[in-house]
Amino acid sequence: MTRDVRRRELLAGGAGLAAGGALGDAATAAARRRRVPRPVLYDVAVVGAGLAGLTAATAIRAAGRSVIVLEARERVGGRNFDHVLSPGKVVELGGQWAGPGQDRVLALARRLGVATFDTYSNGNSVYYANGQLQTYSGDIPPADPASLGELEALILELNKMAASVPAAAAWEAPDADTWDRQTIETFFGQTLASAEARNLADLSIRGVYGEEAEEISLLDLLQAITGVGGDFNTLIGSAQSIRFVGGPQQLSEKLAAALGKRVKLGVPVLAVQHGSHVTLASGSESFHARRAILTLPKTLSGRLVYEPALPPARDQLLQREPNGSVVKCNAIYATPFWREQGTNGQATSDTGPIRITYDNSPPDGKPGVLVGFMEGNDSRLFYNRSAAARRQAALECFARYFGKQALSPIGYYDLAWATEPYTRGAYGSFNPPGVLTSLRDPLSEPLGSLYYASADASPTWPGYMDGAIRSGEAAAGAVLASL
Amino acid sequence: MTRDVRRRELLAGGAGLAAGGALGDAATAAARRRRVPRPVLYDVAVVGAGLAGLTAATAIRAAGRSVIVLEARERVGGRNFDHVLSPGKVVELGGQWAGPGQDRVLALARRLGVATFDTYSNGNSVYYANGQLQTYSGDIPPADPASLGELEALILELNKMAASVPAAAAWEAPDADTWDRQTIETFFGQTLASAEARNLADLSIRGVYGEEAEEISLLDLLQAITGVGGDFNTLIGSAQSIRFVGGPQQLSEKLAAALGKRVKLGVPVLAVQHGSHVTLASGSESFHARRAILTLPKTLSGRLVYEPALPPARDQLLQREPNGSVVKCNAIYATPFWREQGTNGQATSDTGPIRITYDNSPPDGKPGVLVGFMEGNDSRLFYNRSAAARRQAALECFARYFGKQALSPIGYYDLAWATEPYTRGAYGSFNPPGVLTSLRDPLSEPLGSLYYASADASPTWPGYMDGAIRSGEAAAGAVLASL
Repeated sequence: MTRDVRRRELLAGGAGLAAGGALGDAATAAARRRRVPRPVLYDVAVVGAGLAGLTAATAIRAAGRSVIVLEARERVGGRNFDHVLSPGKVVELGGQWAGPGQDRVLALARRLGVATFDTYSNGNSVYYANGQLQTYSGDIPPADPASLGELEALILELNKMAASVPAAAAWEAPDADTWDRQTIETFFGQTLASAEARNLADLSIRGVYGEEAEEISLLDLLQAITGVGGDFNTLIGSAQSIRFVGGPQQLSEKLAAALGKRVKLGVPVLAVQHGSHVTLASGSESFHARRAILTLPKTLSGRLVYEPALPPARDQLLQREPNGSVVKCNAIYATPFWREQGTNGQATSDTGPIRITYDNSPPDGKPGVLVGFMEGNDSRLFYNRSAAARRQAALECFARYFGKQALSPIGYYDLAWATEPYTRGAYGSFNPPGVLTSLRDPLSEPLGSLYYASADASPTWPGYMDGAIRSGEAAAGAVLASL
Repeated sequence: MTRDVRRRELLAGGAGLAAGGALGDAATAAARRRRVPRPVLYDVAVVGAGLAGLTAATAIRAAGRSVIVLEARERVGGRNFDHVLSPGKVVELGGQWAGPGQDRVLALARRLGVATFDTYSNGNSVYYANGQLQTYSGDIPPADPASLGELEALILELNKMAASVPAAAAWEAPDADTWDRQTIETFFGQTLASAEARNLADLSIRGVYGEEAEEISLLDLLQAITGVGGDFNTLIGSAQSIRFVGGPQQLSEKLAAALGKRVKLGVPVLAVQHGSHVTLASGSESFHARRAILTLPKTLSGRLVYEPALPPARDQLLQREPNGSVVKCNAIYATPFWREQGTNGQATSDTGPIRITYDNSPPDGKPGVLVGFMEGNDSRLFYNRSAAARRQAALECFARYFGKQALSPIGYYDLAWATEPYTRGAYGSFNPPGVLTSLRDPLSEPLGSLYYASADASPTWPGYMDGAIRSGEAAAGAVLASL
């Protein structure tokens, strides 16, 4: 058997060549003889029913084109995944926040009738450093003034550098080579003298990427700053200020409900045959379309079997954009007891595994919920440990910041995103040093009939729900213009 | 259809569950009823017929165990790929060199009757810098003495640092965190003042990895120095001193010939179901074994569909170990005309796309062959250009170093390794900053019935044929001990 035949078989899956791989006349004739129905040819097939994919599919349907959405999981929402506590009340195990300027996600919520509310912030925050707990009001933790001064200068410097970095083509910045040649950690090491300032700066990077500053290109960070409007403070502050009543997964659920049978769950796409048409194979099923939009995390898009193979720049890019790693931990309490103590549930700490917490209660504060994030290497300490060990470590962190009552929750829900086979990490993907300038490949460039979209590929609000929506809209626009 | 069923289907391929996925009694009975032959259960299935896989298979067979080797390509050898010019005379399009201390590959060649010869080095080498060509004898190019002094100090420093880095567990070095937190480029920038020294140092890194120093962790380099015996000079010098008469792909071809029908070509494995046994699926075929050894490039091992999914540390590691990028260019001439001019065909240059050349003629110098390497970003300039453009650029480089005669070859053969669907880059894989210390995962750790091997995963002689053989031997030893 030749390789070509075998590859085609592999793409066609169990349905065989006649029904699976064939768009040509001879195969169609053969299918008729065998009474196999002629395959449906959609205008567009979308892989992934997160916000990027569902937004794209909605736009394509609105333009009067036929569309199918193939989702590997038995649920929609991708990195939006809410655990229902009671009707209308959830804890978010994935993405949860929006903020000012995230116009697309806020508009979508309005359109779909999903209300928003402010992240709880009444009262004092907790700052835990060097074994000491302090409370403070406002946005600035009570760190050493010299450290705070360094951080302020750092942020001004980053914002100034970012002003010359185009969000959609960072490699075109005049200093792109210099900035892409170093990690964020190297830049911090050169810029910050105080250990406390470095610690807080590293923490902020983990909060943005779920990854250590030492793995990420400085140019990637500058591109992200441009992408959120030019201010690093947005990334670490106001982008976490708005929540969705009943949880953000509703956005995907409502979009999917409107698309009806066009959304197929439990269909993990494995292989992509592309040319004048696209065939997407999943087990024994194949789907045919004139165009495809792939909305998987980048590293998972790289794992599909492409026929023909991806061009080298795209392939090398997808080898190089891994996901960070986060365990998101929610502890449920009968009441938000920390509020009675005058604190708002927000902690910033130098001690892991949870160094950042928020009050994550529903709008009425019933029940009380604390959410904490194990980010980057903190999360990796738990890769080989039990769910009980994660829970225990999380509760001890909550107790460290808010008192012993935190050790006795009425419920606890967490998710280690690196274990999710169809995500494989969080918050999103990033560029290690040298990648952006080496490959200079905007994922927004279609490859013939193949289009890519995802929150992480959005120049504006990258990694946010808002970016996912923009990315889906942009891909749909490009696809529709091509049909 | 539930996800579980679908995933199993996907793994079973076109053969369906009965013949494909089933090792239990019920399925066997069903298979009998349908007159489908009961599936063969091998002791070991090896994925990949490069030196790692074939070495492993040879050892497993020698121990009296049954083995099957599944190779995606229609040829064996992996990154050893020789183009035959005439009987017994080849140009190597992939790996080609060995050197002192590479005992395993030299022993294998002796055992298989493949003779070796020295890389041609009689006469002067060429040094091209700042638009000027100089010739020189010996190993040290006629760079500025201050630059050479800096480089000598750099190498001593690297060797000293490497002495504390275990090749099989670099993260255990006392300074591992510090060294993994920076790229090789950052270290060079801090250590070398002269632009010429930095240029030569960067060139040496491209020569080792096929990648830019800015993408690679300093700790990865130190680990590699330990792996080749402790001296950076080995990596950039003597490891390129020995060649194989008739080409090194013969090693794989002879091993495969002895394994006979146990080696199956044209079988790209797509999916791996693992537990007490392993099922490897390729299109409509499935293969069953008690153990499997995966010898793919790491990034391609990460692209297989695993059932159950890989544990998070292994998955995140395989997201993070990309391949470099090299175009290897061989120009064929009636005679090695450069020898008549007193040069040995070796050039070192500050100007791309080819900055390194060697005399790559067969032992008798008939025909004459020049080989040049487009490495890292130099190679990426040609991703979207034609084969003719690559040829023209390569010949112009050869002419720059050896004169206009180089513009008129009688043959020309190159390979852009990033376009090879079953390799996707060269020379091998590497660790970006932070990866080794974050994940601390020696790929040598089996996952139940799954074992990994490859040149790039060998602590000793990583990335070399010798490392591939050692890696295959080690995996076979571990597998045999487990059976």
